Amino acid sequence: MNGHDDPTASSTSVLRIMNERALFEQLLRHGPVSRPQLAAATGLSKPTISVALADLERVGVVRSVGLATGGTGRAAQLYEIHPQAGWVMAFDVGRSFVRVALATLTGETVVRRDVRSRARSAVGLLAQLGLLTQEITEEAGITPDAVTYTVFGTPGTHDQATGALRLAPNLPGWNRPGSVDRLRTVTGSPFLVENDINLAALGEQAHGLGGDVDDFVFMSIGTGIGMGVVLGGRLHRGAQRAAGEISYLPFGESDPLAAGAVSRRRGLLESVASADAVVAVARRFGMSGRISAKRIFDAARAGDATALRVVEAEADHLAHALASVIAVLDPELVVLGGGIGAHGGELLVAPVRERLGDLVPLRPPRIEASALGDGAVVLGALATGLRHARDLVFQRALAVD
Amino acid sequence: MNGHDDPTASSTSVLRIMNERALFEQLLRHGPVSRPQLAAATGLSKPTISVALADLERVGVVRSVGLATGGTGRAAQLYEIHPQAGWVMAFDVGRSFVRVALATLTGETVVRRDVRSRARSAVGLLAQLGLLTQEITEEAGITPDAVTYTVFGTPGTHDQATGALRLAPNLPGWNRPGSVDRLRTVTGSPFLVENDINLAALGEQAHGLGGDVDDFVFMSIGTGIGMGVVLGGRLHRGAQRAAGEISYLPFGESDPLAAGAVSRRRGLLESVASADAVVAVARRFGMSGRISAKRIFDAARAGDATALRVVEAEADHLAHALASVIAVLDPELVVLGGGIGAHGGELLVAPVRERLGDLVPLRPPRIEASALGDGAVVLGALATGLRHARDLVFQRALAVD
Repeated sequence: MNGHDDPTASSTSVLRIMNERALFEQLLRHGPVSRPQLAAATGLSKPTISVALADLERVGVVRSVGLATGGTGRAAQLYEIHPQAGWVMAFDVGRSFVRVALATLTGETVVRRDVRSRARSAVGLLAQLGLLTQEITEEAGITPDAVTYTVFGTPGTHDQATGALRLAPNLPGWNRPGSVDRLRTVTGSPFLVENDINLAALGEQAHGLGGDVDDFVFMSIGTGIGMGVVLGGRLHRGAQRAAGEISYLPFGESDPLAAGAVSRRRGLLESVASADAVVAVARRFGMSGRISAKRIFDAARAGDATALRVVEAEADHLAHALASVIAVLDPELVVLGGGIGAHGGELLVAPVRERLGDLVPLRPPRIEASALGDGAVVLGALATGLRHARDLVFQRALAVD
Repeated sequence: MNGHDDPTASSTSVLRIMNERALFEQLLRHGPVSRPQLAAATGLSKPTISVALADLERVGVVRSVGLATGGTGRAAQLYEIHPQAGWVMAFDVGRSFVRVALATLTGETVVRRDVRSRARSAVGLLAQLGLLTQEITEEAGITPDAVTYTVFGTPGTHDQATGALRLAPNLPGWNRPGSVDRLRTVTGSPFLVENDINLAALGEQAHGLGGDVDDFVFMSIGTGIGMGVVLGGRLHRGAQRAAGEISYLPFGESDPLAAGAVSRRRGLLESVASADAVVAVARRFGMSGRISAKRIFDAARAGDATALRVVEAEADHLAHALASVIAVLDPELVVLGGGIGAHGGELLVAPVRERLGDLVPLRPPRIEASALGDGAVVLGALATGLRHARDLVFQRALAVD
């Protein structure tokens, strides 16, 4: 028999999938819940719910967890998604640090670790990531095979045609064709490589300031400068996956019309506003000794006049970059993150806000510093990985069924 | 009886609406068509189609138009949407010209007119628009009451809270609260006010280069400079409806860091790259007499060396502005339009392309000149108006039914 001849059967089956998916989502969001609660939330009949729960329980995706207490009637059996029905690994692969997290299908982070990166060579980094996977799954009491989905956040953009990372000079060796494919040796699971700042924006959406905003940008200022663009609640990646590569905004310390070709290694904005550039400005203003962007901000916070001038110069550069972004996108919210953005906090945000008032024709958008610190990328990678892992677990449950 | 108690009846009615809507769309796109053709295209049964067609015919939305010829079997009755089941008016209200079109529900433009604008005062302009509505509907043999939907394209952004136009210095008097609401006196139909350059972008999507592209920008260069941003096939308007107001990109002839506050009347980009600025550059380069942007481009096309230098300077400014847009959005396509953009054609596009190669880190997006000329805004307004009018006509047909 072919499906076309029996539309009733096929639409029944589509309905069954939709019903089970609706229950799956309810259990993820609100579990543990009882059958009457599920019926009220989904509008499905109690027999439909019982059959679907039995299906999902049989394949280990749902489990029962005792009885509801405190009600007046008969105590109802409670159900939840089995946390260990799936696992997500999330990596933030940077020049200085590798940050990694392992979470259950219900989103609970079980292991979290930050280590110094061995990013000097692609081979060294791959070996490090493989070892980390081994150690961390062991710590959680599972094998690497049990991981359902893995997300790697890296600088640059993943060229899907060639498998190379582009615009990621801080990760030597990854610009060769096929580099990204070698991540297969790190994880046995399906995986995704996404720009780290895009993931930080998604982290901000899932756990930070971007939760209730449709259109916002996450500006990361640190070793490099970049932006994640969320429009209509979704990441805008661009035709070449290079949206938000604002380090290439065409302005610097000189007249843009007099400037020559862009350095392909570093953009113009990066050359005046990244962590290194902040240190260079501080030296020019007369600061000396062992200075870092962090020390400059600490000194400014303590009232040091020179450090305050450095912070103001930085705010000025950022405000000019943001004026371009605002002219193009008119976002509702700008979140400043990355080492400088998050550490700068109000000290940086206040002068950026003030300067923007002069630079944009309408009321500037809300400007806030991220409160997620250096974990934003991992949080976004987990949120992305969970979405994929849940789809996979649900699909596999149907296939077994 | 209430709907909740009888889910069968209510879902049947939803289904009926969906079926009639599917037929309505098929007839709009492919009419005249026969019932067998409709059955093949929609998957609906022939009885369902017959009932739906009868419903729509009874309220004057669908009409039968003779028999199909050339087939071997029995000749089939053909149906189409009645063109006069609805009317759309579209206005492009500019500083120099008012352009207007009246089209049938099936998208056929019946009257099209361009007149000098009386934009010196809001009152004069309103009177002119009212008179035009009167004349043009008369010419089409209908009354103004017959217009289903009207779209006004204007410079600036429509502040929906106050009913004022903002950022539209070229339309004196429209920045007062309630200005936009006075357009009610021009048309008895429901209406929409949209930024003219946003509409030009939609015109480009409906009839020009943007048809098969998900993410593109339409850059209008003329009296003013602005951009329509289409992402995922939809207009991106921004939180304050000011997305694409790139005349406020923070760069000009001097170092951006040395520049003072933005003029709220004119943006920095506009001050160096609009039509007036092109004329000023030409004078600086030694051209004299009665020069206009159009004459400069004509002279450049004829090989005049000075005019060519002016065009190159203009291309340089535009390329720098586009480098900002590309850094933020990474669009697939950039369409240059407006007086200078469309008239400049390849003469302008070629040096913009070349300059961009130096300014952006990846391959630049496709850059093309619009072929729609000065009718792009009206075409976009018609496309937008048709969408709204078709929804209204369909909803009214159901209500009568």
